[in-house]
Amino acid sequence: MFSQTVEYALRAVVFLAERAPDAGTTDEISLATQVPKPYLSKVLQNLGRNGIVRSQRGIGGGVTLVKSPQDLTILEVVNAVEPLQRIAVCPLGLKSHGKNLCPLHKRMDDALAAMEASFRSTTLAELLAEPTSSHPLCDGPKLPSRKNGDAPAVH
Amino acid sequence: MFSQTVEYALRAVVFLAERAPDAGTTDEISLATQVPKPYLSKVLQNLGRNGIVRSQRGIGGGVTLVKSPQDLTILEVVNAVEPLQRIAVCPLGLKSHGKNLCPLHKRMDDALAAMEASFRSTTLAELLAEPTSSHPLCDGPKLPSRKNGDAPAVH
Repeated sequence: MFSQTVEYALRAVVFLAERAPDAGTTDEISLATQVPKPYLSKVLQNLGRNGIVRSQRGIGGGVTLVKSPQDLTILEVVNAVEPLQRIAVCPLGLKSHGKNLCPLHKRMDDALAAMEASFRSTTLAELLAEPTSSHPLCDGPKLPSRKNGDAPAVH
Repeated sequence: MFSQTVEYALRAVVFLAERAPDAGTTDEISLATQVPKPYLSKVLQNLGRNGIVRSQRGIGGGVTLVKSPQDLTILEVVNAVEPLQRIAVCPLGLKSHGKNLCPLHKRMDDALAAMEASFRSTTLAELLAEPTSSHPLCDGPKLPSRKNGDAPAVH
């Protein structure tokens, strides 16, 4: 149901949210998210074009989130790479239906609306703050290095 | 979010549910559902392989639903053509996660679970019985002919 592009974009943004406000390099993101670099570069370009990340070249450069993790929702990331398309009008183009969806398309759109609402109500900061034994992207040696050389918390 | 194959399969099954227990020909289904015949044939083959419809050749033949509309759910139709894939284990293959999803994948799977539950709880008969001004597939001249020559109800 979720494309690989959506999955990869979310992983990259989760990584950057952990790093925020610091930048991450493509190498670091690729390593932590297990996304192949060429694919990752395309995903990051896409996220850049849609205002989710910005890139800075040179020493000390890298990729950063445009918004703070407190203000960035899952939905914004999903919509940046593959907009969650609601069913706004009858897919058959039936004139008598129009925006008045039939029960079939209404059920399908209701499911999409619920997903949209769930993703809109969750920020990246909330994801990272959630008490869990499975911290996003964290698996011992693959854990990205922290600011100030802090040891990662035990998850 | 929903592929064209899923959309087309659901339209075809809605048509056949209206016809049930009578059969519909591919020409009739194609006309009513606005699905091109070659694509429709593939979708019907897929639905046939997965036990949703059966086909009978010859005079009086056609395509019928295997189950009654009262017993057939939207989820069964979706899963027959493009299984709704839940996130069962960590997509990154992190050993420390396994079936214990991180908050990101938990949110994504929760959304899929809600969709699955909604589709599992809705039968084709319920869709067709729902009071609405937009009856599935119905738009005047495209309405499939009814059994016994009944005039279609005014929707």
